Amino acid sequence: MSLDLRVYLVLDPALTSGRSPLEIAEAALGGGVTALQLRWKSGPLREMMQLGEALRALCRRYGVPFLINDRVDVAMALHADGVHLGQEDFPPEVARHLLGPQALIGVSARTPAQAQAAEAAGADYLGSGSVFPTASRANPVLIGLEGLAAVVRSTRLPVVAIGGVTPENAAACIRMGAAGVAVISAITQAPDPAAAARALRQAVDEALAERKKRPEGDPG
Amino acid sequence: MSLDLRVYLVLDPALTSGRSPLEIAEAALGGGVTALQLRWKSGPLREMMQLGEALRALCRRYGVPFLINDRVDVAMALHADGVHLGQEDFPPEVARHLLGPQALIGVSARTPAQAQAAEAAGADYLGSGSVFPTASRANPVLIGLEGLAAVVRSTRLPVVAIGGVTPENAAACIRMGAAGVAVISAITQAPDPAAAARALRQAVDEALAERKKRPEGDPG
Repeated sequence: MSLDLRVYLVLDPALTSGRSPLEIAEAALGGGVTALQLRWKSGPLREMMQLGEALRALCRRYGVPFLINDRVDVAMALHADGVHLGQEDFPPEVARHLLGPQALIGVSARTPAQAQAAEAAGADYLGSGSVFPTASRANPVLIGLEGLAAVVRSTRLPVVAIGGVTPENAAACIRMGAAGVAVISAITQAPDPAAAARALRQAVDEALAERKKRPEGDPG
Repeated sequence: MSLDLRVYLVLDPALTSGRSPLEIAEAALGGGVTALQLRWKSGPLREMMQLGEALRALCRRYGVPFLINDRVDVAMALHADGVHLGQEDFPPEVARHLLGPQALIGVSARTPAQAQAAEAAGADYLGSGSVFPTASRANPVLIGLEGLAAVVRSTRLPVVAIGGVTPENAAACIRMGAAGVAVISAITQAPDPAAAARALRQAVDEALAERKKRPEGDPG
């Protein structure tokens, strides 16, 4: 499955203001989300797997990659397209061994050193943040736009910016070289998740078009 | 690996009174533990996997099966001998598919219906409890010795009794038909984990020898 990271939704069923995660996912995909990750930090695993089955079918319908946070075994059971791994999660090289060469493997990387280690371990993309303050995570380590740019410069892998990204600041991330933006609450807590996804997609697409016009290496 | 469930230690690093889980495991194996499960409910997965590597080597040295609670991917990564799955954990039939026919798969079963479902799903053994009140779990569902006996009668699989088991009440579990007893705090919180393991092993071995003398079907 090809990797389009422009608008990457991290779906955490604990952060949907009590609304159906599946309905939010469908609205977001309709609005232009290009990748979807299921993140599940607590609660019965069987429920996560049931939701995952439905999300996988939905993502297939939209031709969008479906990834699982941390649980490689769940990704295998659901025939997901891949996994996203934190620095303290399952080691990416072991995930690659278990999932095979076709799987998409993303790794969270806050620093150039983490980015290079993940690249060496066989990651397909990096998630880098928190770029901005965010309500989805208590006391996030902020790297700012400069930290994002440092990670982008350190690796050949595509980098998706995460943490406090909104339609208003998404373009700044793309200007720093990010391949896209990942959001949780900007979509899942939005009154209209489809509209939120559309606004993010538009901001990213416009910034990518703008970036293309500039000679390489010109930060604008 | 053969399945000797007589004294089954569930090692939860959060329940060792601050002592080294590896040292407790070694003392317990020296004292006669016949199976060891690593249970890890929170904290960085990489730490669990490091501890798991060391425990696997230790268990190999003692010729004792090493199982992982819930995380099938971690069991695969560590080349553990199998997994133990709760009712709301990873489905046992999918675990069997991923781990292959040689893996040991245990399933928690509180009722005959759960026991029969687990047997049909390809489990190798059942863990059944809580037989007695226990400090290791908040508000456990108590099944008592009668509940344990009902599970034993409902399945051809070996059943290990769990929940509040001590050297004093272990024999009662064996008399009900259990193949062995599983403990957490009775060993990991004991002042002398080796002595605690020895006392459990002795109680179980004596009750098993006693049970052998009786004609089948005679509850004694």
